[in-house]
Amino acid sequence: MGSHAHGPSIGPSVAEILDSHACGTGSPVDTAARVADAIAARGDDGTWLSTVPRAELLAAAAAIENRPGARTLPLYGVPLGVKDSIDVAGVPTTLSCPDYAYVADRTAPAVQRLLDAGALYVGKTNLDQFATGLNGTRTPYTVPRSVFGGELISGGSSSGSALAVALGQIPFAVATDTAGSGRVPAALNGVVGFKPSRGLISTVGLVPACKSLDCLSVMAGCIDDVDRVFDVMAGRDDDDPWSRDRGPRHDGTPIRVGLPPVAELEFFGDDAMRAAHLRFRVQLERRVTVVEVSLEPFLAAGALLYQGPWVAERLVEFGDFLAERPDSIHPVVREILRSGLDYTAVDAFAALQQLQNLKARASRLWQTMDVLAVPTIGTTFTVEQVRQRPIDCNTMLGHYTHFGNLLDLLGVAVPLGVTSDGRPCSAMLLGDALRDDTVLALAAQILDEPRPRAAAAATTVQEQV
Amino acid sequence: MGSHAHGPSIGPSVAEILDSHACGTGSPVDTAARVADAIAARGDDGTWLSTVPRAELLAAAAAIENRPGARTLPLYGVPLGVKDSIDVAGVPTTLSCPDYAYVADRTAPAVQRLLDAGALYVGKTNLDQFATGLNGTRTPYTVPRSVFGGELISGGSSSGSALAVALGQIPFAVATDTAGSGRVPAALNGVVGFKPSRGLISTVGLVPACKSLDCLSVMAGCIDDVDRVFDVMAGRDDDDPWSRDRGPRHDGTPIRVGLPPVAELEFFGDDAMRAAHLRFRVQLERRVTVVEVSLEPFLAAGALLYQGPWVAERLVEFGDFLAERPDSIHPVVREILRSGLDYTAVDAFAALQQLQNLKARASRLWQTMDVLAVPTIGTTFTVEQVRQRPIDCNTMLGHYTHFGNLLDLLGVAVPLGVTSDGRPCSAMLLGDALRDDTVLALAAQILDEPRPRAAAAATTVQEQV
Repeated sequence: MGSHAHGPSIGPSVAEILDSHACGTGSPVDTAARVADAIAARGDDGTWLSTVPRAELLAAAAAIENRPGARTLPLYGVPLGVKDSIDVAGVPTTLSCPDYAYVADRTAPAVQRLLDAGALYVGKTNLDQFATGLNGTRTPYTVPRSVFGGELISGGSSSGSALAVALGQIPFAVATDTAGSGRVPAALNGVVGFKPSRGLISTVGLVPACKSLDCLSVMAGCIDDVDRVFDVMAGRDDDDPWSRDRGPRHDGTPIRVGLPPVAELEFFGDDAMRAAHLRFRVQLERRVTVVEVSLEPFLAAGALLYQGPWVAERLVEFGDFLAERPDSIHPVVREILRSGLDYTAVDAFAALQQLQNLKARASRLWQTMDVLAVPTIGTTFTVEQVRQRPIDCNTMLGHYTHFGNLLDLLGVAVPLGVTSDGRPCSAMLLGDALRDDTVLALAAQILDEPRPRAAAAATTVQEQV
Repeated sequence: MGSHAHGPSIGPSVAEILDSHACGTGSPVDTAARVADAIAARGDDGTWLSTVPRAELLAAAAAIENRPGARTLPLYGVPLGVKDSIDVAGVPTTLSCPDYAYVADRTAPAVQRLLDAGALYVGKTNLDQFATGLNGTRTPYTVPRSVFGGELISGGSSSGSALAVALGQIPFAVATDTAGSGRVPAALNGVVGFKPSRGLISTVGLVPACKSLDCLSVMAGCIDDVDRVFDVMAGRDDDDPWSRDRGPRHDGTPIRVGLPPVAELEFFGDDAMRAAHLRFRVQLERRVTVVEVSLEPFLAAGALLYQGPWVAERLVEFGDFLAERPDSIHPVVREILRSGLDYTAVDAFAALQQLQNLKARASRLWQTMDVLAVPTIGTTFTVEQVRQRPIDCNTMLGHYTHFGNLLDLLGVAVPLGVTSDGRPCSAMLLGDALRDDTVLALAAQILDEPRPRAAAAATTVQEQV
């Protein structure tokens, strides 16, 4: 893993890239060349499934430079990666399943908004097949490793999206999150993983995992980059039946942070992770108003997801393929998909009723807090550990993320440095639906980022999108 | 059917009963005696499954009279019936299935609110077994007939609730509505059937049909009675996970009424019903602003309900009973329940995804209108017709009601008099979730009822509930 073996090497931020393009110390073509060189230098490390060839990438950057008015665009010449379950016109969408792959004829509208804002498409990033997994090993391509070395998994399913940002190749990537796919790999690679409230970013052009739960998400190196990218991506889309408008901007009032009782936190015996998380809580308690909030209804909803019928929703998309081409599917993914066949409609409705009950209970807890802070992951695993216990390890990775979309929450994984033994530590900040800006405000506080754009954006950007 | 054979004989309204109790021309005991006499005079006509014996009813009325402060209560001595799928403490809840019956140990909170407001519980009304049906014939007890005679069905599943009001025995009854059970029998008996937005009235103490869709509803003789009863019944209940607060009161702005193109209306060859409904539309167009709105997404959602997996949700409650006591179930209901076993979880999630798509489409239509006006039923049936084609007739009866709860709408069936051949005609006014007061305001306009209480109630009642 070379120089990256001990953590992320976040590259220039969106703001820094825009500055360099604006003041002439750089240009979109320079940036493209740097990105191409950085990717080439790594070789096939499992980050990318396809990239725009160097000459084409430079030509595309030159085309952006020559586009009239492009210099004032919010992402002028900023490079991005796209998880390979999301369509980019003319490029194969593989979902890490070569026999499922097809060449997309239309770019996903949310990605198109980025391109229209001047961004430079670099390539498609690796993922757990069919976005089914939180560990990054369920791919027939090269299995990626975390930038923290030690043969740690990169996490999944947005394994390559997190890595490309952590390696400093691109400032942000478009990922997805159904049960934690946009947050777990962020935690394992020391970057920010933002999963907005469902429906704020169009999911058109995403091959669904669980359509009722899927979100597009953003991997980035800082909250400012998330803000900038999210402002461009968010917007109503009548072709996405879950589409809805953004909630209010954070108005600056003190944020009440819910913390679970320590006894409810689960680190699976990982004492170093536990210590690191408790240090974070101590620091947090010095800065914000804290209330104790039980995780019980949240974890119960998570259990419904991984022990319940939602796996069957994946078969709405993949059922025919499973029936016709079972040998084309990764064995672990195949086993998981097949388990969806065992559930009846009665099971589904019973679980939906239970979920409604948990939603109501969680909803009452949200009246006492604005943000819920938990670990993003309770522990880390090596590739070998996941290979030996592919289901158990995955379930542990999703302990704090499984319930997010079921309960209609938003979440952001915030990197917190390392444990005493050098592994990544990440806090997850959760908010009730449409409280995205409040959660991002707290994330910026934690990362000591000023957030000057937010207030200004409240009027101007809302009108644009 | 005696004197009731040609339509409803609505009795004194809630306001009239309260007036008589207040000015001394009547009393709760007098009212109780009148109710007991009226019920006794009919004999077993299939309206009631159990009633409080005469002496006990009079004693209960006397107890209300003697309750300190009772005279100022909003329903002081007003008699009511309760559909026999809703619990009243000490009384059997039968669901029209003797082998399923149990004696309730707690009164449903929504009914308790009525009793606390001074109302007098009279008895339990007949229903299609397990609230599964829209026709009223699926009962092992006496099959009720419409007050319009001609062996017309009373409609269901709240068959007895509508009848008791139409017969003038009680001013209102608590019914339920999952797929039209609170509106179809109202239409067939010439009374008002109000199904509020889901969650405004607690469903605790109701044996669920489809728990995610069930609503308590109100049968009454006029909108003023609905207003009074709804004001008492509505209120948050943390034990009902679907519970939510009422929406805004109608602010008096002109109501935009959506009417489907005539070509989209379905009367199943019933030209007299068609003519009566079109007369109503002409009158409506003279009074309000009308916009043309396609029924297509609404009817598609209805088709999802009766051709899709939601029947399996009934088995969450009745699955064990179906497995253990199939012979205790009405044959038609048994056949329907069994069909729920054929659906997989994949079917359920696929249908939920389709529903979300239809919800999004309907949601856009609601931006152009405040109320959608359609027939409540496209035609009527006799008991014999339903017996010969039990499923087909039922499906036709639900043509305009099936989609209501699936799309999170509210609805009120408004009696419009009779067709040229003397059968009941009813319009259904639908609104998007939480627009209850706007829909009731239009219903009052159509029935030429002044609605003085609404504005005053906006502050006072909201604070009470």
